[in-house]
Amino acid sequence: MAELGVDVLLLSLGADLPYLTGYEAMPLERLTMLVLPREGDATLVVPRLEAPRVVERPDAFAVLPWDETDDPVGIVAGLAGRPDVVAIGDRTWARFLVDLGKLLPGVDWRKASEVTSPLRSRKDAEEIQALRVASRAADRVAAQLHAGEIPLVGRTEHEVSQDIGRRLIAEGHAKVNFAIVAAGENAASPHHDPGTRAIRAGEVVLCDFGGTMPDGYCSDITRCVWTGGEPPAEMRDLYAVLLDAQQQAVASAVVGMPCEDVDGVARRLITEGGYGPQFVHRTGHGIGLEEHEDPYIVGGNCERLAPGHAFSVEPGIYLAGRMGARLEDIVVATADGPEALNHVSHDLVVVDA
Amino acid sequence: MAELGVDVLLLSLGADLPYLTGYEAMPLERLTMLVLPREGDATLVVPRLEAPRVVERPDAFAVLPWDETDDPVGIVAGLAGRPDVVAIGDRTWARFLVDLGKLLPGVDWRKASEVTSPLRSRKDAEEIQALRVASRAADRVAAQLHAGEIPLVGRTEHEVSQDIGRRLIAEGHAKVNFAIVAAGENAASPHHDPGTRAIRAGEVVLCDFGGTMPDGYCSDITRCVWTGGEPPAEMRDLYAVLLDAQQQAVASAVVGMPCEDVDGVARRLITEGGYGPQFVHRTGHGIGLEEHEDPYIVGGNCERLAPGHAFSVEPGIYLAGRMGARLEDIVVATADGPEALNHVSHDLVVVDA
Repeated sequence: MAELGVDVLLLSLGADLPYLTGYEAMPLERLTMLVLPREGDATLVVPRLEAPRVVERPDAFAVLPWDETDDPVGIVAGLAGRPDVVAIGDRTWARFLVDLGKLLPGVDWRKASEVTSPLRSRKDAEEIQALRVASRAADRVAAQLHAGEIPLVGRTEHEVSQDIGRRLIAEGHAKVNFAIVAAGENAASPHHDPGTRAIRAGEVVLCDFGGTMPDGYCSDITRCVWTGGEPPAEMRDLYAVLLDAQQQAVASAVVGMPCEDVDGVARRLITEGGYGPQFVHRTGHGIGLEEHEDPYIVGGNCERLAPGHAFSVEPGIYLAGRMGARLEDIVVATADGPEALNHVSHDLVVVDA
Repeated sequence: MAELGVDVLLLSLGADLPYLTGYEAMPLERLTMLVLPREGDATLVVPRLEAPRVVERPDAFAVLPWDETDDPVGIVAGLAGRPDVVAIGDRTWARFLVDLGKLLPGVDWRKASEVTSPLRSRKDAEEIQALRVASRAADRVAAQLHAGEIPLVGRTEHEVSQDIGRRLIAEGHAKVNFAIVAAGENAASPHHDPGTRAIRAGEVVLCDFGGTMPDGYCSDITRCVWTGGEPPAEMRDLYAVLLDAQQQAVASAVVGMPCEDVDGVARRLITEGGYGPQFVHRTGHGIGLEEHEDPYIVGGNCERLAPGHAFSVEPGIYLAGRMGARLEDIVVATADGPEALNHVSHDLVVVDA
């Protein structure tokens, strides 16, 4: 905060608050906010009815409950004093920033991630181990998909999505964050919302799923399968380009490599393979206590990979209205080179399920 | 917007966007934002990889996809023009408002709910019917609890919470929003996080659960049960006070009644019963596409109930470290008086489960 000239840090929803205090705010209209001045003591302003949830840490912060007819924004503004620069949690609801803006006119507002991302994005050994455990749990579900243990043909995308979600929980996750299941032409929609379309034999099914483990760390994996029979030549060609691009991008993710250059490796290979315009998103995102966080593996991000950076490498190729594929591993940059945390087969596995 | 002097409405996360467009933004770091000027056409700015999710409605809005190396905040600011007053969605992430604030200096920022709440809080006949269906689905789970079909004694709060969640889905919900299960002394923590505590015979179990139906409308109900044997006199007395307060508050919720006076009815009866300081939260919250929305049934809210207002009535009494109880129904204000949407027994049912 001193380096960045930030006088006060205000944290609410998102992972910054549990990262620093162990307490996670409820995503509701009653404000929970940690007021952390550069000098002096931190205060957790919390609705009185949620105060019993807080595990107090008097060494780290004081707890200040507010009552239903109090103005919590006024309490926060009072605790903030007369700051010039305030950094507010990135996922805080805008309604609170709008109200704070009226009470703290003239403040230069910043994003809390400017302060917290450098702390959170480089994982220590314990965090990397937590990410390994999470990735292995996701790997086990992907292995069940490859083994044909998750019925596909005849079920709807939504049913398979729910099934995958139950398996994520069964394999140790506390929460499912997403379970994209996109069949056939829907696989060309990278963030497809699994719906009532029934899965047929002889088509691609793209599955991108992940959750949060009880310790707060996240998994995220994408695998595609082919539902019986030999995939057509176009699909085989597309997938070969994708697999090579993904593996080369993983291999390129050494300490010191600019994030955008990892993206560049995948993009160059996919472009050389003839699918450049069909790779419509970045190559990856950081992962940790949040499913998407810094560092982003994207053009324009010249930050260099450092030991402990953990992120996805997930290029995709999408032929609109027809088919698509994406392949994703979580990778950690280490002094010994990139460590991929997902080990389940990277092939376009043919399943009769 | 004209009445309120708002030049542009910016909507992202939350229910305002699907209410107006049918499209719900993904809660991720890539900005989705509807730019709706007071005059002129609306534009939905959406990440290109999510554009295939949008069901286009050319009569209502244009779709403007942005690419991964574009600056979506800059695009939004450009579409906004040179506004004096901008209302931004209440649940929009603060990071986007911080960035917009730099690009649109001098703007008077308002909360979008100032514009949208008067539209959304008064439900029409179709919406009320949707809330009835949602409440009936929650009622069926509560009836299973009362009938002893949900095992309690010997299981952890967390296991029961997961069980209730599965039953909410089985009864027609698309998503579980919460399933608080608080046993014994934990029932004194209104927003208790269900944990590893095993439920024992002869204690109170507070269950507060709800979800979102496929059409987007929410349920929310609280019932308490006693796990075998006769509840002690203190619990019976506390519950009798609570039941009377809740029922009288429901009955008081007629059109024209100030919201704070409905809260006052419950608070007066609980105070007369000797538990005033132990009723630590407001009496209720509006419900619709969001689990908590306007109108709030709380001291200080002098808004009068109007036909179509839908809200919870859920007083509670909490004896710290010992026990607690809450009782909640969803109620709609109608010209014919309050219509309670939950019909399952309001008693402290004794279950041997």
